[in-house]
Amino acid sequence: MAKVVKSVESMMKLSGGFRKKGLSIGFVPTMGYLHKGHISLVKEAKKRNDIVVVSIFVNPPQFGPREDLKKYPRDIKRDLKLLSRYKVNAVFAPAAKEMYPDGYRTGVEVKGLSDKLCGASRPGHFKGVTTIVAKLFNIVRPNNAYFGEKDFQQQVMIRKMARDMNMGVRIISMPTVREKDGLAMSSRNTHLNKEDRVKALVINRSLKFAKILVNSGIRSSVKIKAAMTKLMRTARGLKIDYMSICDPETLDEKSIIKGKTLIAVAVYVGKTRLIDNIVINCA
Amino acid sequence: MAKVVKSVESMMKLSGGFRKKGLSIGFVPTMGYLHKGHISLVKEAKKRNDIVVVSIFVNPPQFGPREDLKKYPRDIKRDLKLLSRYKVNAVFAPAAKEMYPDGYRTGVEVKGLSDKLCGASRPGHFKGVTTIVAKLFNIVRPNNAYFGEKDFQQQVMIRKMARDMNMGVRIISMPTVREKDGLAMSSRNTHLNKEDRVKALVINRSLKFAKILVNSGIRSSVKIKAAMTKLMRTARGLKIDYMSICDPETLDEKSIIKGKTLIAVAVYVGKTRLIDNIVINCA
Repeated sequence: MAKVVKSVESMMKLSGGFRKKGLSIGFVPTMGYLHKGHISLVKEAKKRNDIVVVSIFVNPPQFGPREDLKKYPRDIKRDLKLLSRYKVNAVFAPAAKEMYPDGYRTGVEVKGLSDKLCGASRPGHFKGVTTIVAKLFNIVRPNNAYFGEKDFQQQVMIRKMARDMNMGVRIISMPTVREKDGLAMSSRNTHLNKEDRVKALVINRSLKFAKILVNSGIRSSVKIKAAMTKLMRTARGLKIDYMSICDPETLDEKSIIKGKTLIAVAVYVGKTRLIDNIVINCA
Repeated sequence: MAKVVKSVESMMKLSGGFRKKGLSIGFVPTMGYLHKGHISLVKEAKKRNDIVVVSIFVNPPQFGPREDLKKYPRDIKRDLKLLSRYKVNAVFAPAAKEMYPDGYRTGVEVKGLSDKLCGASRPGHFKGVTTIVAKLFNIVRPNNAYFGEKDFQQQVMIRKMARDMNMGVRIISMPTVREKDGLAMSSRNTHLNKEDRVKALVINRSLKFAKILVNSGIRSSVKIKAAMTKLMRTARGLKIDYMSICDPETLDEKSIIKGKTLIAVAVYVGKTRLIDNIVINCA
């Protein structure tokens, strides 16, 4: 079984010891309830670093007051069992009070990126994300940190934060891992009932459809979004939260699709909010 | 002469090397134009650490649009000469563009402390301070960092930030160093003409006066402030920016003086804004 570390102090000592020995640390921050997407990050970290640390922490500040903090799926025993297969060196799993003791006041924010896409629908969410990741980086002191491209905006923001703040951590993003039928892996997929699980397929399908349309020569974002919306409407009760066609670095919206372009969507399937995206490159 | 480092990358390599060898790093961040206050920090750092790094960086974001960024005194040659006497191991003196390249977007903020005292008069100032200090800590990787108590609120906020963000840096504050006549040392004192230099003496005098009044049994902040204001008014043309009687940790205002208490003032003498403070402890 992987070593479970619960206190900040112990984790800092452990990672300080690794660094002093000149060992490279690969870090995979997660909210637990691990799936194949997380495992792909762990495997990559294992390949490229002497030491791998995984954190499991459901971070309260990144959930809005009406969001699913309480019912976010948790099963640390299952997670630890899964991680033991991959010979992870340490699992950092602190309590919320350990990370945010009474009187906690500090935040890290990436302006001009935190208010776009998911940030527009979830005010405060990304400040919560960048703050906890900055804390985790200070505690774990990784050389390399691994993030999935399903949370595309998240890895863009963390890369920007790490560079701006001279954190000395290389941010590595890995492709979204999908179910056989195309649904992006997410811990939140466990919330879907049978019917919703089928409806959710339209999310990835609409992104693939967008890619086909762009490749066929349509370059107007308005037209692409209209076509995607039409396709999504075939799944009854599915509610589009946002749809964005934008620059994958600045997240600035594009009206004409040209060059590297991110198409990202967030959708409510029943009460479950799911996100997915695709990056296309066209002349 | 101390080694001058201008690039972030070189400084990170240098400090990384020190840390790998197990050498402790003491860090004194400054805006240059060094005086005896800074030197007291350097001496203390020398005493307690294997390596001492001093940074010299006039940090644009911590100056408001109408403040004295342009005329803030600078003389790096003089500073380096002075530091060479104390066998500082490295002086980190980056250009503004090196610290804030184009497209820079990230900030660190300590909520609920940044908007009090100097923060109320200088909106955005402390966000500028905490952000640059967080960056410098990432670059220099100190074990101990030294700050003067003249900037009392600054060291309170940085201590809070370092703890909240698990930076692993011990914040050490050192007593304000004063001219023989009581004026707190400050690079900005060079802006004062002869007449203003005399007027400025009333600042420290009013703090000492407050202490005497408290010790004589007066515990009402309103009364103490009124007496201090009256004394300050004896210096014509001196403008009080703020006067605060508060808790030295939370910076919450106190109406009744009891326990450890900070009395802090900011005053315009001509166009020069000067600050000073005193901490008293009464039953």
